[in-house]
Amino acid sequence: MTDHPADASLPTHATVRVRLDLAYDGGGFSGWARQPGLRTVEGELTSALATVLRTDDLALTVAGRTDAGVHARAQVAHVDVPEAAWRALPGRSDRAPADALVSRLAGVLARDAGGPRGSGDLVVFAATEAPSGFDARFSATWRRYRYRVSDDVGTRDPVRRGAVLWHGRALDADAMASAATVLVGEHDFLSYCKPREGATTIRTLTSLDVTREGHGPDEGLVVVEVVADAFCHSMVRSLVAALLAVGEGRRPVGYPAEALAMRSRAAGVAVAPPHGLTLEAVGYPPDADLAARAQAARSLRTHAADD
Amino acid sequence: MTDHPADASLPTHATVRVRLDLAYDGGGFSGWARQPGLRTVEGELTSALATVLRTDDLALTVAGRTDAGVHARAQVAHVDVPEAAWRALPGRSDRAPADALVSRLAGVLARDAGGPRGSGDLVVFAATEAPSGFDARFSATWRRYRYRVSDDVGTRDPVRRGAVLWHGRALDADAMASAATVLVGEHDFLSYCKPREGATTIRTLTSLDVTREGHGPDEGLVVVEVVADAFCHSMVRSLVAALLAVGEGRRPVGYPAEALAMRSRAAGVAVAPPHGLTLEAVGYPPDADLAARAQAARSLRTHAADD
Repeated sequence: MTDHPADASLPTHATVRVRLDLAYDGGGFSGWARQPGLRTVEGELTSALATVLRTDDLALTVAGRTDAGVHARAQVAHVDVPEAAWRALPGRSDRAPADALVSRLAGVLARDAGGPRGSGDLVVFAATEAPSGFDARFSATWRRYRYRVSDDVGTRDPVRRGAVLWHGRALDADAMASAATVLVGEHDFLSYCKPREGATTIRTLTSLDVTREGHGPDEGLVVVEVVADAFCHSMVRSLVAALLAVGEGRRPVGYPAEALAMRSRAAGVAVAPPHGLTLEAVGYPPDADLAARAQAARSLRTHAADD
Repeated sequence: MTDHPADASLPTHATVRVRLDLAYDGGGFSGWARQPGLRTVEGELTSALATVLRTDDLALTVAGRTDAGVHARAQVAHVDVPEAAWRALPGRSDRAPADALVSRLAGVLARDAGGPRGSGDLVVFAATEAPSGFDARFSATWRRYRYRVSDDVGTRDPVRRGAVLWHGRALDADAMASAATVLVGEHDFLSYCKPREGATTIRTLTSLDVTREGHGPDEGLVVVEVVADAFCHSMVRSLVAALLAVGEGRRPVGYPAEALAMRSRAAGVAVAPPHGLTLEAVGYPPDADLAARAQAARSLRTHAADD
């Protein structure tokens, strides 16, 4: 059992806050957020949790609300589980509830998804009782995304085609990297956001790196890696689209900075296709700072803001 | 233009032998070999070549005739192209026919496969005029395959689920590695082959390594990597099935060797699912030895043998 003194939104009956670490292939999902009649990550996961925990009284909170088609390698969510349901989970005393949850979810999620090729596009690879003050969304201090582009037939891998953009024109990765540097720091990213009413579009980009990878699984690909405290809606894919325009020579190196300075949707920045984008990691502060960080982030961003 | 003095099967009219380096996601194919009414790699590639080269007089020869569902990261094939069709390919004089072929095939193969998610499961990533004496199948001196297994929910990556076996039981990779060592060398692999009439089942395994990967894209996975001069039908997947039985403790470490010694289908070795298997690379000797190698391999293996 954990308690959450800093979190006024907690239910009053006894619950256990559980941190879920999950990964998904976004290709078969209409994004994270639950929508009636559509297959979403939140919807599938909530339903699998309800099956395993035998309760419908569950609400998920997530670190990064990914769009339709965007993948996650290490997404983080939390759910408050009624204490009785949590304790009943293992079925035998020598097993921790968290281990039982991972194992049961694996069975339910693979089964629900259908045949051997379709199944397994959502995996909860770890579950832990969250430390006091933990909030998957508001405690997070940074999110890291990677956007992968193949601009050469020689680097196209059919097995990974669902997670790499195949771009028909050769890219100048150095020009893209130069263009990216001036976007780093705290800025109003309105030109790169679909704003929501009442939500700020000010974000802090910690880094925005463009590299042609020399080795490893992404060898030969142009990879845009971006880290920020948080992102607004469609921000990463807009940044990538502006950089791709520079990389293929359609726009000058100064274009992304000029668009930023306009602080307007009228800048007309495009949005890159979703399937090249993967949420790679989410960072949290030391346990002692979780609650303070959550309070600070809550006051900074309204509930309507994306992450 | 190349000529092939050592190859009596060459057509008498002037052709250019072209080496094709290709990759595919085996999930959407009924294997390499052309079969009426089924989507096969050979069938799709032959048809794409016919479109690009405007001739139906094309026959592919391949290094590794993979089964349904098996992937290839670096498959090698050759095709003899009528000289006139080859020369007409670029459409302009400053471009090499081989470059034009790769580019046009990329367009045709992506287009034929349909929508953005389905398209691109077959990529010809390089084409070259083959050196004299080159035969994609018979000049090859080795083939390397990898079979990837996740035996822990924590190592399951949804984006790669089409190319990794998700195994429900924990594996002892060290026991599998011990069991594998005695299979290395020249043996009659009849217990691990679906034999074809008149074809030898004697093969030389250069290496058979089982590793729990410590880093890189396969981190945490159990990987069976096997290199041999050639393989008979279903041989790699049978070797993997025997090793998996050892890894999960269903069979003793001596089981794969005992099955080998039986030299019989009655050994009852199972066949692991195809989607965990990928043809990673094919090796050829220096150009000067290509023709001699092809002649030697032809006399060793009959046309009915697999590779």
